[in-house]
Amino acid sequence: MPRPPTLSDAEVAQRLQALPGWTVAGGRLHRDVQFRDFSEAFGFMARVALLAEKMDHHPDWSNVYNRVTFELMTHDAGGLTTLDFDLAGKISALIR
Amino acid sequence: MPRPPTLSDAEVAQRLQALPGWTVAGGRLHRDVQFRDFSEAFGFMARVALLAEKMDHHPDWSNVYNRVTFELMTHDAGGLTTLDFDLAGKISALIR
Amino acid sequence: MPRPPTLSDAEVAQRLQALPGWTVAGGRLHRDVQFRDFSEAFGFMARVALLAEKMDHHPDWSNVYNRVTFELMTHDAGGLTTLDFDLAGKISALIR
Amino acid sequence: MPRPPTLSDAEVAQRLQALPGWTVAGGRLHRDVQFRDFSEAFGFMARVALLAEKMDHHPDWSNVYNRVTFELMTHDAGGLTTLDFDLAGKISALIR
Repeated sequence: MPRPPTLSDAEVAQRLQALPGWTVAGGRLHRDVQFRDFSEAFGFMARVALLAEKMDHHPDWSNVYNRVTFELMTHDAGGLTTLDFDLAGKISALIR
Repeated sequence: MPRPPTLSDAEVAQRLQALPGWTVAGGRLHRDVQFRDFSEAFGFMARVALLAEKMDHHPDWSNVYNRVTFELMTHDAGGLTTLDFDLAGKISALIR
Repeated sequence: MPRPPTLSDAEVAQRLQALPGWTVAGGRLHRDVQFRDFSEAFGFMARVALLAEKMDHHPDWSNVYNRVTFELMTHDAGGLTTLDFDLAGKISALIR
Repeated sequence: MPRPPTLSDAEVAQRLQALPGWTVAGGRLHRDVQFRDFSEAFGFMARVALLAEKMDHHPDWSNVYNRVTFELMTHDAGGLTTLDFDLAGKISALIR
């Protein structure tokens, strides 16, 4: 699947406004989500896995107990693309 | 791990009163749970898997899209035991 | 997404020949898979969940400890379609 | 659950010899595991989640597509304990 081109700084700034909870740092789209415990965190991770596989766009993410951290970028494009903002939006929709 | 003995009909009836949403049929503890979609159902299933593995007591369960059905029993004991009621209570706690 | 039409008995019989391990009974595509333990069974279930969500075609399936049972059909079409055979083939590819 | 004390450098070095594939860096027990694709990586992650929850000791881990990276430590103890080596051993047993 051809990857979309990287977004300009202005486009990134504009799209970020529609994504409360996310920031951009080091060329990555970042969010830290906290849950009650590991079970709740992993139930969420299973849902993120499903939507990432469906999009064929997968997150850079890490987990420590009840915390899940995202550092999204499009590796094939070498930066942030619309795919990362789509994925971030779908991840946000899973967080109550 | 030694399994607890099967419960009498009176004990089953009493414990069932503390478990809204569950019924007993054919010697099984039954509940049908519906979600919005497959993603929500599978996120729930991942959490049930974690607690079942932790208890070392696993459900008889099935899934069709947004629906998850439980038919709990203790195979080693040949009937319903306190383990099934413990598992059912923990499953219920995951359902909002 | 429009669903494909149901397959004729002759088409079902022909496609079944390419699917070792699967049988047709009661209008369903059936397979029973056994694993060493619950962990191995659930790791497999997580992978089936990913591919089903990606196909937007989900299995009727059940699990008891180390066993996972499939009873595939296309609910929207009221019978077996090419989707069920595609899903069955992808599930088989996950079984070593 | 009371956590075990941190291990001495000599104990860490000795235990590490029994754990091929793992290294210690920055006071963490590190391993990088690569799979064929995201599906295989996530199936593995689901199994790691089950055993971590069962042990009540959870990994610091990250995932990018087909790669899963572990950085184990015991947060409550502020360093490496026998729990980390137990978890690492169980993770290794899941990798074919």
